Amino acid sequence: MENLITSHLKLGLIAGGQLAKMIIQEASKWDITTYVLDADDHCPASSVASVCVRGDRFDFDDVYRFGKQVDILTFEIESINVEALHKLKSEGLKIVPDPAILELIQDKGAQKDFYRQHNISTAPYQIYADKAEILTAIAAGQLTFPFVQKVRKGGYDGRGVAVISSAAELENLLEGAAVIEEKVDIDTEIAVIAARNRRGEIRCFPAVEMVFDHTANLVEKLICPSAISTEQTHQAEQIAFQLIETLEMIGLLAVEFFVDKQGNVLVNEAAPRTHNSGHHTIESVLTSQFEQHLRAILTLPLGSTRLKMPAVMINLLGEAGHTGPVRYEGLTESMAIEGVKIHVYGKKITRPSRKMGHVTIVSKTMDESLAKAEQVKKLIKVKT
Amino acid sequence: MENLITSHLKLGLIAGGQLAKMIIQEASKWDITTYVLDADDHCPASSVASVCVRGDRFDFDDVYRFGKQVDILTFEIESINVEALHKLKSEGLKIVPDPAILELIQDKGAQKDFYRQHNISTAPYQIYADKAEILTAIAAGQLTFPFVQKVRKGGYDGRGVAVISSAAELENLLEGAAVIEEKVDIDTEIAVIAARNRRGEIRCFPAVEMVFDHTANLVEKLICPSAISTEQTHQAEQIAFQLIETLEMIGLLAVEFFVDKQGNVLVNEAAPRTHNSGHHTIESVLTSQFEQHLRAILTLPLGSTRLKMPAVMINLLGEAGHTGPVRYEGLTESMAIEGVKIHVYGKKITRPSRKMGHVTIVSKTMDESLAKAEQVKKLIKVKT
Repeated sequence: MENLITSHLKLGLIAGGQLAKMIIQEASKWDITTYVLDADDHCPASSVASVCVRGDRFDFDDVYRFGKQVDILTFEIESINVEALHKLKSEGLKIVPDPAILELIQDKGAQKDFYRQHNISTAPYQIYADKAEILTAIAAGQLTFPFVQKVRKGGYDGRGVAVISSAAELENLLEGAAVIEEKVDIDTEIAVIAARNRRGEIRCFPAVEMVFDHTANLVEKLICPSAISTEQTHQAEQIAFQLIETLEMIGLLAVEFFVDKQGNVLVNEAAPRTHNSGHHTIESVLTSQFEQHLRAILTLPLGSTRLKMPAVMINLLGEAGHTGPVRYEGLTESMAIEGVKIHVYGKKITRPSRKMGHVTIVSKTMDESLAKAEQVKKLIKVKT
Repeated sequence: MENLITSHLKLGLIAGGQLAKMIIQEASKWDITTYVLDADDHCPASSVASVCVRGDRFDFDDVYRFGKQVDILTFEIESINVEALHKLKSEGLKIVPDPAILELIQDKGAQKDFYRQHNISTAPYQIYADKAEILTAIAAGQLTFPFVQKVRKGGYDGRGVAVISSAAELENLLEGAAVIEEKVDIDTEIAVIAARNRRGEIRCFPAVEMVFDHTANLVEKLICPSAISTEQTHQAEQIAFQLIETLEMIGLLAVEFFVDKQGNVLVNEAAPRTHNSGHHTIESVLTSQFEQHLRAILTLPLGSTRLKMPAVMINLLGEAGHTGPVRYEGLTESMAIEGVKIHVYGKKITRPSRKMGHVTIVSKTMDESLAKAEQVKKLIKVKT
């Protein structure tokens, strides 16, 4: 830590969305110099980053040139030009998590194979090369409804996933190579964020329960501690621990789980980065996920993940039917409620379901936090 | 709030030290654009401010020109060119707190007169025009040892104060107009930060107890909640409330108190700004002092000042005998202790007793926080 500060270390972040912004808010407490690569000069992180570099994270040259400017490179999103990362790594740049981890997770097929290979419980699946192969399998009776299609590469925030319940819904099938999963009879969805540093130290954040908005296919609200049984949260934490250890990865691994109606805990998918399900930690946990990410990648001791207060987090999403310069309603009224903490990311343009900010509500009891979350949801609207 | 965000409000801060930096860290959560005026391009706030303007806060033209660039103007320090503020205000700029408050508090004589005028308990005092007048009063037997001399203008962080216990110490008398106070037989020092917005809403943070390092004349450690009696902390909170109400000021007022051996609670002095004694609120209170400052000056509902966890705060001061480019020791070891939150301000040069950062320790019990604070104090050294 002392070396990092006195050596004027330059920390590079690929993409400058809200996750990068919140990492930088923590990094600034330790006086760390931050560089951000983003195609948009006005990206959320631009307001706090030391240096913003304009560039395309899918472009080999842009990523490579950016990497050459920094001492340590990390990212806030999985979809990046990995070839450039491999070249940078081969030339000695410290990249955390490792590009190999990114490559594994970028590909949902490889991700599922990894779970199977390491006996990590996940929904049964098969991999198909394209839409035609899926249709052939259905025609041959090898694949039955309902099922879930996940495109192998490029999915994000609910995009790249289709639930196909009958032949009539086949028109919703997505193009490209895909994982086809048995549709889990979901009771609850939970998430656990694990952290690991170079010394092999591992810590997990308490499990959170995600309540979904099935229309937008986005988390509607997040509850920590989770209301589900201690045994199941413990099981999820064990799996997250095992997974990050098996991957030998450095950084954060956010693992999403299905708990089915029979009480089985199944890995849904993982992301090797800070995650929407960990935003509440800023106010409710001794160490926020953003500080933990820094501790992990900078080879510092991991911080305590002890919960200070029960928390509910809600995303502030762009209202349906509103696309254009953003205008908020109800922030002032919401701030008057005790324990309501507002985060506005600074995106200038709203779109339906776009993540424009979030609100964490901390109270002495979960019931109180839940009631306040309902109030806030009614009050805040993201419009044009 | 919604108007502030959508109107791209520009918030101006005079001086870019650690207080401004921490205000901006909060402001960035609400996507507020921040401008900072400082003579040093590498001041702590420069790493997070939207725009840094180089200029001298004592210079009329620099302050005036800076004010013309922003929509709302506030400050992190009392010593500013007030004439420029008056002119800006007369031309319609919103300045919070009001320049008149600043002028009152800049002058310790006027400050003491205000307390007397409003029956706010404070140590008995007299005002002298200069050193010669003080010496004359002593010679005439009108002033007896021990006493405390506080220069009327320009004191900061323990500078501008002399304790004169005998004739032999008269060589330590400071130049200029001064307040001479009876030396209080101090048992404890406490501080309360009050906040008030334009609607007249007032909230006080819980009283904190300050333990002094008498060599450096700086706070050595700060404890919240205070260990002193409930009645006395309540009395201090009452006085802070009364004071900010009487002043009709908008913003934060940090009031420092002496509790004497007889248990009397006396106002020592006040500062119309965020304050060193409120740093612990970032981690330990539902609303930090920095967020509360923003709420107060932006006419937003004030936030809850409920304590989440008992906290101890220690300043990271430059070691004696070390002046030059800073080098830290013991940060990594300290971070390994649960609940230790490190803030490095980003000052590149250390000097003896310079405030280079602070550490807040939060735990379930005050005893645990105190024990950890002792560990951290032994571990962290700020050297060259």
